[in-house]
Amino acid sequence: MSKEVKHIDLKTIAGPEFLNQMSYKELDVLSTDIRDYILDITSKNGGHLSANLGTVEATIALCRTFDFKKDKIIFDVGHQCYTYKLLTGRQLDTLRKKDGISGFQKMNESPYDHFEAGHSSTSISAASGMAFARDLKGEKYDVVAFIGDSSIQNGLAFEGLNNLAQSNHKVIVVLNDNGMSISQPVGGLSNAFRKMSGSSFYIKSKNAFRKIFFLTRFGKWMWVKFTKVKNWTKRKVIGFNLFDTMGLDYIGPVDGHYIRHVEKALKQAKKTVRPVIVHIKTIKGRGYQYAEDDVEGSWHGVSKFDVATGEIKAKEAVVSWSEQYKFLLKNEMTNNKNIVTVVPATEHGSDLDSLFAEFPNRTIDVGIAEEHAFTLAGGLASSGIHPVISIYSTFLQRSYDELSHDVARMNFDCTILIDRAGLVGNDGETHQGIYDEAFLYTIPNVTIAMASRSNEALSLMKESLCNHGPFAIRYPREFFSVNTEGVKKIPYGSWKVELEGRSKDTAIISIGPVTVDLKKKIQELDKDVTLFNAIYIRPMDEAKVLQLLNYKKVIIYNAYATKEGFANALESRLLALGYQGKVIVKTVPTEFVKQATIDEQRELFGLKIDNIIDLI
Amino acid sequence: MSKEVKHIDLKTIAGPEFLNQMSYKELDVLSTDIRDYILDITSKNGGHLSANLGTVEATIALCRTFDFKKDKIIFDVGHQCYTYKLLTGRQLDTLRKKDGISGFQKMNESPYDHFEAGHSSTSISAASGMAFARDLKGEKYDVVAFIGDSSIQNGLAFEGLNNLAQSNHKVIVVLNDNGMSISQPVGGLSNAFRKMSGSSFYIKSKNAFRKIFFLTRFGKWMWVKFTKVKNWTKRKVIGFNLFDTMGLDYIGPVDGHYIRHVEKALKQAKKTVRPVIVHIKTIKGRGYQYAEDDVEGSWHGVSKFDVATGEIKAKEAVVSWSEQYKFLLKNEMTNNKNIVTVVPATEHGSDLDSLFAEFPNRTIDVGIAEEHAFTLAGGLASSGIHPVISIYSTFLQRSYDELSHDVARMNFDCTILIDRAGLVGNDGETHQGIYDEAFLYTIPNVTIAMASRSNEALSLMKESLCNHGPFAIRYPREFFSVNTEGVKKIPYGSWKVELEGRSKDTAIISIGPVTVDLKKKIQELDKDVTLFNAIYIRPMDEAKVLQLLNYKKVIIYNAYATKEGFANALESRLLALGYQGKVIVKTVPTEFVKQATIDEQRELFGLKIDNIIDLI
Repeated sequence: MSKEVKHIDLKTIAGPEFLNQMSYKELDVLSTDIRDYILDITSKNGGHLSANLGTVEATIALCRTFDFKKDKIIFDVGHQCYTYKLLTGRQLDTLRKKDGISGFQKMNESPYDHFEAGHSSTSISAASGMAFARDLKGEKYDVVAFIGDSSIQNGLAFEGLNNLAQSNHKVIVVLNDNGMSISQPVGGLSNAFRKMSGSSFYIKSKNAFRKIFFLTRFGKWMWVKFTKVKNWTKRKVIGFNLFDTMGLDYIGPVDGHYIRHVEKALKQAKKTVRPVIVHIKTIKGRGYQYAEDDVEGSWHGVSKFDVATGEIKAKEAVVSWSEQYKFLLKNEMTNNKNIVTVVPATEHGSDLDSLFAEFPNRTIDVGIAEEHAFTLAGGLASSGIHPVISIYSTFLQRSYDELSHDVARMNFDCTILIDRAGLVGNDGETHQGIYDEAFLYTIPNVTIAMASRSNEALSLMKESLCNHGPFAIRYPREFFSVNTEGVKKIPYGSWKVELEGRSKDTAIISIGPVTVDLKKKIQELDKDVTLFNAIYIRPMDEAKVLQLLNYKKVIIYNAYATKEGFANALESRLLALGYQGKVIVKTVPTEFVKQATIDEQRELFGLKIDNIIDLI
Repeated sequence: MSKEVKHIDLKTIAGPEFLNQMSYKELDVLSTDIRDYILDITSKNGGHLSANLGTVEATIALCRTFDFKKDKIIFDVGHQCYTYKLLTGRQLDTLRKKDGISGFQKMNESPYDHFEAGHSSTSISAASGMAFARDLKGEKYDVVAFIGDSSIQNGLAFEGLNNLAQSNHKVIVVLNDNGMSISQPVGGLSNAFRKMSGSSFYIKSKNAFRKIFFLTRFGKWMWVKFTKVKNWTKRKVIGFNLFDTMGLDYIGPVDGHYIRHVEKALKQAKKTVRPVIVHIKTIKGRGYQYAEDDVEGSWHGVSKFDVATGEIKAKEAVVSWSEQYKFLLKNEMTNNKNIVTVVPATEHGSDLDSLFAEFPNRTIDVGIAEEHAFTLAGGLASSGIHPVISIYSTFLQRSYDELSHDVARMNFDCTILIDRAGLVGNDGETHQGIYDEAFLYTIPNVTIAMASRSNEALSLMKESLCNHGPFAIRYPREFFSVNTEGVKKIPYGSWKVELEGRSKDTAIISIGPVTVDLKKKIQELDKDVTLFNAIYIRPMDEAKVLQLLNYKKVIIYNAYATKEGFANALESRLLALGYQGKVIVKTVPTEFVKQATIDEQRELFGLKIDNIIDLI
């Protein structure tokens, strides 16, 4: 055999057992190969890049220390599990594609996946449940929660940690501290983590003192006595650090890119009997300069890009709805000093970086703290500020109570920009934005609206500032051509008649950007149909609803939500008004929708324009 | 004037200004008088007793230190603000009654109320919003969040605190630490609080050491040097305590029943420029022996009682639904070792104390951590345990995301006992249990059911254990007569025909316990009507729905929820099936329903049995 370190053919990996036969030198080569593979895959399929580059060595160390056929691991969020997937025998060519490998952990994909996530900060609670079950049944295995420094600052993670501290059911929490989050780390815990990381400096200073004291025998005696007092003080009264204060054992910090060091810490954790934190420090984007240098989170989640140049593959000459609303919001913030924008770690994801740069004093990124975002907004609104919350539809779920209890109940003025509403494509089940319309419908006082064109968006943005209480504007993860039609104010609560049919045969009530394409198609085919654009989802346009009674057939077309919101409410209204014709409802089904492109998902559910044309 | 300290006539209090003219001796007398008044009122009207007895002195100190016409205070939850209400000129005779004084802070009640709550742990976030608004507008006033040691352990409060630690917008957080929660304090923070409170012991020990060292000059020199090292260590590396570690200033702990001490700490806090925690120690139930001795939380929220004997006024010879489900759950837990019950601080509120006593190893009280409860349940379910979560309807709102993402999405088997579903009466807007049915309807995979009699409840409890995924059983805050009818298994997803009408004129679909009374009344009046008992709210009984098509009139009667859940779904189904008759929907309106008795609320909304009879 040559002296050169052998490369493993990544395509042949069936399980993690081979790792135990490898030297650390070989493992380093493997790490580099895995990084190249992840870069290659994500540059083609899109996905989470930086987090996966940062956790290659830690994952290898985990797979060498534990046996995850028996032991269990939950990757928090799950967006950093590509190395784990590969090492447990999953090729990533079909990553995030229809019927392919999910971008997150999936139990039906592999016996190595024991839980599933997509939303942040669930791992500690879920691991605690597993540990409780294990001990109740008298089984023997380890449970590991692998969680980032941003995710651990969410309320759910804190509740998990707070309960774990008093628990007899051992969980190993690996805190993957890369000093960075989707946007920037924002909370007090970031301080605390920095302090812990500084402890090597503390140890060095202590050693210097120690040397001076040990020059004399009396000094040595004094040192020993004082150390005892100090340790007693620290342990009993103050606590070593945040985790220790809460009553959790703590190991670290160790460099998460040194497999040997991580292994040592994990082995030590394995031996403890109580819940324990292993604090590792990693560099997000490790090994890919563009990603390492990234401070905004541009390389957190990526679409197709060129590996050599780091250039994102060109998008069409169109605008995203996120960009559009950023532009509209910027204008309003320029004119109105009382607007404050709040985001839960989605500054970059919702394309708001330049807004934050322009208004540093009137923008707040609260980190992954969706609950806090809404109650904070309630506090702002109670004191004469108009808060605008920008949030992904799927993360709005975590604010249900705060939106209801702290904003809607007191009917505070508040604009809620709901990004990624509707089907989201490749992120799959955990990220679908199809439920918010329905759950917003269950909360009193909330206005719900969706524009189909940029000029309608402008009108909605302006209207949301006019004392209507909480005002939710939904928009999808799609691009659109900016329209050049003039801007006309859309009266609050009204629908637009897009097309007036010749007869009273069929009326379609359509919501959102697909309405534009539907209109075009109807015109092309010269169909006899009346098309309403239900820009206001709630309240409904009662005058237009009354007009519907004249039609033989009413088609409700909502490609961005399930039926429990607008569709059912309109049906209920039609019934109450004694409508006698036929009602056809085309919405996203009330289920957890798997990954595929948005187009594939629409096709699957018969939600494409052609499907609607066929119904006329 | 006699030497006896003058009593203030509590009925004459118009505002808190008079407090500033009083001596500490007079204030102590006032405190006692206020306690007697609170005891008197709650013994008649019911309400929150212990928390209010515990915060009398602290509230007086707050009102003397701040001017809450200009400064703002948010009482977390708001259940401890009776003294504040009284001192700001509100008599409590109508406490919790229709059109009377609310049991919580209410902005439309007084200019002294600046925000409203009812759910836990919102105060820090809301106060942060107020402080941000104040500084942005260049205004000058103090914002105080008054929060208990249990509430601060919720995820939302942690998010607020974590963000506050890095904020330049000053908030004074008064941590009211009574070492107790609705049930028992359960988290790691409780440990941390205990450690902080122990610091007087630490100081004493330190002083003893100090004396020894100061015997010699060299010793004194050593002490000074070492103290410097130690303080540097503590401040820079370790942090004094949890709050300090996070970067928050900290004052305390002080005895919350000594007005003078509390005032001193508050004045100090007033002078700081950064966000600051004032840690006060109080005794819940202070001054009323029965409440002070209470460790279970029996005196947290009370119904009418006798002040002298502490005896709760006798209830009728009937059983509460909480008791009934406790009984059923106990039986199942006895027979099935794989059932684990999880509650978020509602062990006592949902009458589960004896269940916890009987199964200490299979019951978990996670504290006020509704999110954690559900994700923990997901972890349990993933590992072969059947979790039963008992939770109030109104608090279930805070678990929306976790129920969806961590339980329903993976279709884990899990029983959810939803206590206090429907109208709740005197607690008012923040505690209504009328929304959960509708928001559960927006989450795929969730079964929703409600029994009208105890034998149906038994059937539902058993069925929920039979692999149907998440299975929610709703029950109201009502009493009922245990029925003696035999127990018959109700097939999954089916409705019961309570009465078969002679003609096909009218069919009523009714939900929950009111169905029993409705049936009785129909029989009494010999009305020609078919009555269905929709025990399964989702899925619906499709065969019975088809039968409805034969009726001229369909009445949907749901006194326990808004229309966005079952009612709208059934209407949608009827429309899809081409139903041509008349549909009348009687549900709770989708609004925030004010305090009154449940009966008064039903009357207001036309939801009484007689209202339904009138529709036939």
